[in-house]
Amino acid sequence: MIAENMKEEVQKNSTVRQMFEEGRRRAKLYGEDKVFDFSLGNPSVPAPEEINREIIRLVQESDSLKLHGYMSNAGYEDVRKQVADSLNRRFDTHFTENNIIMTTGAAGAINIIFKTLLNPEEEVIIFAPYFMEYRAYVKNHKAVPVIVPPDTETFQPNLEAFEKAITPRTKALLLNSPNNPTGVVYSEETIIKIAGILKQKQEEFGTEIYIVSDEPYRELVYDDVKVPFVTRYYDNTAVCYSFSKSLSLPGERIGYLVIPNEFCDYEQVFAAASIAIRIMGYMNAPSLMQKVIGNCIDLETDIEVYDRNRKILYNGLKELGFECVKPEGAFYLFMKSPMESDFEFAEKAKEHNILIVPGTSFTCPGYLRISYCVSEATIRNSLIEFKKLAQELNLI
Amino acid sequence: MIAENMKEEVQKNSTVRQMFEEGRRRAKLYGEDKVFDFSLGNPSVPAPEEINREIIRLVQESDSLKLHGYMSNAGYEDVRKQVADSLNRRFDTHFTENNIIMTTGAAGAINIIFKTLLNPEEEVIIFAPYFMEYRAYVKNHKAVPVIVPPDTETFQPNLEAFEKAITPRTKALLLNSPNNPTGVVYSEETIIKIAGILKQKQEEFGTEIYIVSDEPYRELVYDDVKVPFVTRYYDNTAVCYSFSKSLSLPGERIGYLVIPNEFCDYEQVFAAASIAIRIMGYMNAPSLMQKVIGNCIDLETDIEVYDRNRKILYNGLKELGFECVKPEGAFYLFMKSPMESDFEFAEKAKEHNILIVPGTSFTCPGYLRISYCVSEATIRNSLIEFKKLAQELNLI
Repeated sequence: MIAENMKEEVQKNSTVRQMFEEGRRRAKLYGEDKVFDFSLGNPSVPAPEEINREIIRLVQESDSLKLHGYMSNAGYEDVRKQVADSLNRRFDTHFTENNIIMTTGAAGAINIIFKTLLNPEEEVIIFAPYFMEYRAYVKNHKAVPVIVPPDTETFQPNLEAFEKAITPRTKALLLNSPNNPTGVVYSEETIIKIAGILKQKQEEFGTEIYIVSDEPYRELVYDDVKVPFVTRYYDNTAVCYSFSKSLSLPGERIGYLVIPNEFCDYEQVFAAASIAIRIMGYMNAPSLMQKVIGNCIDLETDIEVYDRNRKILYNGLKELGFECVKPEGAFYLFMKSPMESDFEFAEKAKEHNILIVPGTSFTCPGYLRISYCVSEATIRNSLIEFKKLAQELNLI
Repeated sequence: MIAENMKEEVQKNSTVRQMFEEGRRRAKLYGEDKVFDFSLGNPSVPAPEEINREIIRLVQESDSLKLHGYMSNAGYEDVRKQVADSLNRRFDTHFTENNIIMTTGAAGAINIIFKTLLNPEEEVIIFAPYFMEYRAYVKNHKAVPVIVPPDTETFQPNLEAFEKAITPRTKALLLNSPNNPTGVVYSEETIIKIAGILKQKQEEFGTEIYIVSDEPYRELVYDDVKVPFVTRYYDNTAVCYSFSKSLSLPGERIGYLVIPNEFCDYEQVFAAASIAIRIMGYMNAPSLMQKVIGNCIDLETDIEVYDRNRKILYNGLKELGFECVKPEGAFYLFMKSPMESDFEFAEKAKEHNILIVPGTSFTCPGYLRISYCVSEATIRNSLIEFKKLAQELNLI
């Protein structure tokens, strides 16, 4: 009796669930430390201690009715100002509290701006490979996801295909850099080209086309790679951010949406987004966590841990003859499948108690995603099993 | 450039916002204690102290990665079991953790079960008067709200009109008792009759029709009134609950959804709802608050405070000649407008710095909602102004 559009979602999800359950089964059978579960993007570095200290301080010192109460749907004004000020310091922007809506993570932010903007049948362009739930987010609003196939040379977006995909019904481009699942950061050159194409198409079609920039991994970058702040390159940009990865708070559902003054019809859009957060059933971002984040806005997670994992895994796999995309950000490594089918390779890896996600799940067959947000020991021990795999496949 | 369906929402919302801003303006002009703002359903009793103690204990004693991390989308299993056990103790039900999904309040729960069940063009019946956002929740899923007009004698649902409103396209009835805005509790007799009508219509049309029971005010009842637990009367019932009102945590967005084993296609529906929570962008209910709620599941708020307010206000207004529906639950009093237009009366009340919401906002013109979750002093002082109003209108 479930809704038609949920049937496909249940089907897809059961694949991932089966992998998860297989992992649990193997952990019981062989022991936790003998199973190498690289399937989830769950931070392995705990939240900075200051977060817990701030929770305790707020609970001890605040008026309970205010700390746990309703505020403006967009969030506490002081917190929104703290977020705006932090962005301004770091990216030379000029935001105020009236450009920020506190949200239940980036997923909440994306759905709010989609609810605000999308009419049924309008198109949202997504670059493959992409986080598997983007498609469902677009469909929540009866809009149409349009997938641009990957450029498997660089895993920068395929801009030629992008240009062709834009139509008069294109309402938005959903962008994700640092990218899940590839770990690639879209370069400044890429962002400038995307902005150029969109400006030209806006003019050609007499439409407005928005960039929705999903940036939960913005702070997780290595080797001094820079992540361009997209509002600086294109006016019609909304930024969706989450503290899930950068401060290791994925369960708390806290993030924000940025709508700059330069966004077309900014005032109306901001007002509508502040209502969309209510009628989508979020009401507001969790109140205590808003205050915590506001007061801890410039905290950073210890990315050295992820960087070390990245280097050990990338170098280890390369030495074993696996072809990998060099990760510049996030905590994902995208590996080319050494067998024709990524599914078959994932199955073969499972025989070695290695759990990795087939690229087909990200609309990029022939590749696999390895989440290296695990312990260093897991990485090191897995390489022994990866070596056996490489030998079986005659890579070394 | 906002979506077509958001335009109406922005328009509606600006009415409420104008009232709020008018209140702020008057508070500045005349002083906070001279303005009687009865417009919001924001608890005035602080959360029990145990809540804050439990937050601190959890933060001090838990593994941060687990406390702030991802869990199953449906929520922590132990918390879901705590919720199920508490319901079983109180309502003689037989739920397990596999009947409970932790949600971002009742609004989240309603949207999740709607996402799970509703196809475009299917109908959801709502009894007027009703919480103004229900209509938007139904439209989120491109389904059609069907409003049953009120029975202004009793403010129990108008069952004759209800029966006529059911069609082969009816997918759900959205029920809310104790009711916002009337404060009425639907009696056991009413629930039995509703169940009977639905069972007969299911058979007649060969369809499944669900009750979605929104119960954020379940614990706020007076004079030993009993709130029937709807799953005991009708199998196809999903319960949506929030701790916003019962534990004064509206900002924290924590509640749950109950899907009983008896629900048609229970397993598929529960699996789909656990995915709907992801793709609606909630992902999961806030993690720390889940744990807090689980460990404080049998705490109760001090309803004596609301009860005292209720009596002072109800008796005071009656003495002044105002016609009021006697509130049995929640913290709302529904008053008949002594002027033909509820809007005009709300304007007239505003001249006395009394802010109340016209019933038209709840699809019940000719009435007004007074939220008595305010200080006792506000109630007592407002009665002086209500008296002046009564005199002006020749009620006394």
